Amino acid sequence: MASSKYDVLGIGNAIVDVIAFTEDDFLLSHDLAKGSMRLIDEAQAEKLYQSMGPATIISGGSAANTVVGVASLGGSGSFIGKVRNDTLGQAFTHDIRAIGVHFETKPADKGLATARSFILVTPDGERTMNTFLGACLYLGPDDIDPATVEASEISYFEGYLWDPEDAKIAFRKAASIAHAAGRKVALTLSDSFCVDRYRDEFRALITDCTIDILLANEHELKSLYTTSDFDSAVDALRNEGPMAVVTRSAAGSVVVDRNGVQAIPAQPIDRLVDTTGAGDLFASGFLLGHARGFDHRDAARLGAIAAAEIIQHIGARPEARLRDLAAESGITIS
Amino acid sequence: MASSKYDVLGIGNAIVDVIAFTEDDFLLSHDLAKGSMRLIDEAQAEKLYQSMGPATIISGGSAANTVVGVASLGGSGSFIGKVRNDTLGQAFTHDIRAIGVHFETKPADKGLATARSFILVTPDGERTMNTFLGACLYLGPDDIDPATVEASEISYFEGYLWDPEDAKIAFRKAASIAHAAGRKVALTLSDSFCVDRYRDEFRALITDCTIDILLANEHELKSLYTTSDFDSAVDALRNEGPMAVVTRSAAGSVVVDRNGVQAIPAQPIDRLVDTTGAGDLFASGFLLGHARGFDHRDAARLGAIAAAEIIQHIGARPEARLRDLAAESGITIS
Repeated sequence: MASSKYDVLGIGNAIVDVIAFTEDDFLLSHDLAKGSMRLIDEAQAEKLYQSMGPATIISGGSAANTVVGVASLGGSGSFIGKVRNDTLGQAFTHDIRAIGVHFETKPADKGLATARSFILVTPDGERTMNTFLGACLYLGPDDIDPATVEASEISYFEGYLWDPEDAKIAFRKAASIAHAAGRKVALTLSDSFCVDRYRDEFRALITDCTIDILLANEHELKSLYTTSDFDSAVDALRNEGPMAVVTRSAAGSVVVDRNGVQAIPAQPIDRLVDTTGAGDLFASGFLLGHARGFDHRDAARLGAIAAAEIIQHIGARPEARLRDLAAESGITIS
Repeated sequence: MASSKYDVLGIGNAIVDVIAFTEDDFLLSHDLAKGSMRLIDEAQAEKLYQSMGPATIISGGSAANTVVGVASLGGSGSFIGKVRNDTLGQAFTHDIRAIGVHFETKPADKGLATARSFILVTPDGERTMNTFLGACLYLGPDDIDPATVEASEISYFEGYLWDPEDAKIAFRKAASIAHAAGRKVALTLSDSFCVDRYRDEFRALITDCTIDILLANEHELKSLYTTSDFDSAVDALRNEGPMAVVTRSAAGSVVVDRNGVQAIPAQPIDRLVDTTGAGDLFASGFLLGHARGFDHRDAARLGAIAAAEIIQHIGARPEARLRDLAAESGITIS
């Protein structure tokens, strides 16, 4: 196996976030489930945008946020995802490349606009996402560059990728190339409603060993095993085999593998502003740590450090150099 | 004189900010004067954007920020400025209307794109702005709606408006309508380099009584009177007549009128992040206070409260309800 050029390759929806602070009443009156992600069409997007408050535009996309976090931590990242060649697609492309992530997926030159997620942040810092997938629907197997997959220590997929139809085929192609090259495949379950939509498929990916590393939060894991009891869900997961890390917000994270279950505390913060990207950035640290051979504890600590930075400001892209924050906590990325 | 429908009408460049954190070395290597605003053309904009880091997109524009601050403080604001009917122009329009500001200037349907300012924020929180004026160059006297000017207690102009050629004619038209309706006219000097470009014109506006209220920071005031001594600049200003408020960053502000000079302290902050909009938001509080008949001290305090919020996060648009922050400090806006 050749040495890897990229620590983590992210494959996911290329999305620009449009983020506004709002009150809980707004969620209620628009019938939105707090903390979830729902898909909306262009007309719904237009209507929601008209009714929401002043917004900040920041590049997003779950797996894209993760590889940007990997780069900010001092690792090397690559990304595959589809934008349109429009103003927001150019902004997405600029932002991900500007931090040093390899991103060469050809943009769509016609059809739907670059995807955007309208994110409503309530006073408790929780985010509720409304995503218009737009050009993400055009991602397909031809966008998977074998050389990039082969050169990546971990290929990381977001569960949200099951929403655009052809992206699944792209996923299977990439996973098969990665395993043939002796690399690892990781998946995040993304959102408990997403797990509801694709539970059987996600379960199959785990039991047929397509997935080597599973990332989830506790709600998603409970949804996967249709239980309200966290310990039962963890037991079910252990029986199925892949290494997994489960985040529990302020309660920290739990790493699960055949050797047992290990709990790692969250990183303390000064002020919770916006939880957008908390899971994505935890994944940055955990996957980079894993790619670099860290033990579970240090990999999860690195995840906690990255997540702590992201929830103290608007948006899911780091404002500080995460590598420096890791060094302050005694974790050196060379 | 009829009662006013708007506390403050802002007339200025309609700009979207593209903000990135950077190191001081970047300013040096690109020959940029820290803390200033320079004008760039489309080719320079493209080149700078390619070399700068990941960015956050937030509506901006000096006078636009000010009227948004007025609305957030619980006052009523109106704005006149020119965008193109493109993606960023739509974002600008959404954001200013979403906070309740009256904005009905017809967007340009051809020609240059919506203006953008590439803002580089250094670790000391200072911002250095590079502005492509784009569609702002199309603002002219036909965009001045007399009814809106007549209905506004204060018409507020930014010095930056002297850069696009026809905007000056628009300014003179609006100032004349305002005075005929018994309203006040205010001007901010905007930037010391801007004062360098238009010193004689700005001096003439003061001495011929076109300006009733002048806003400036200490650098701009010193540039106006070509002196390095703050007290000499204040003396020169007092001899010329208009009421003025001069901001001095962490040292607070000074209100100058024929009765004397009064110093008001800055509002304490936890953490300086990005000074973009500090002067604009000070103007929000000061002008709203003045429109509501506050004494100089309370008007300047209201300005200090608004400025303190804006410098603790990225961008020049409030993230908190400024009216609530003012109430916490004992200032009620009814």
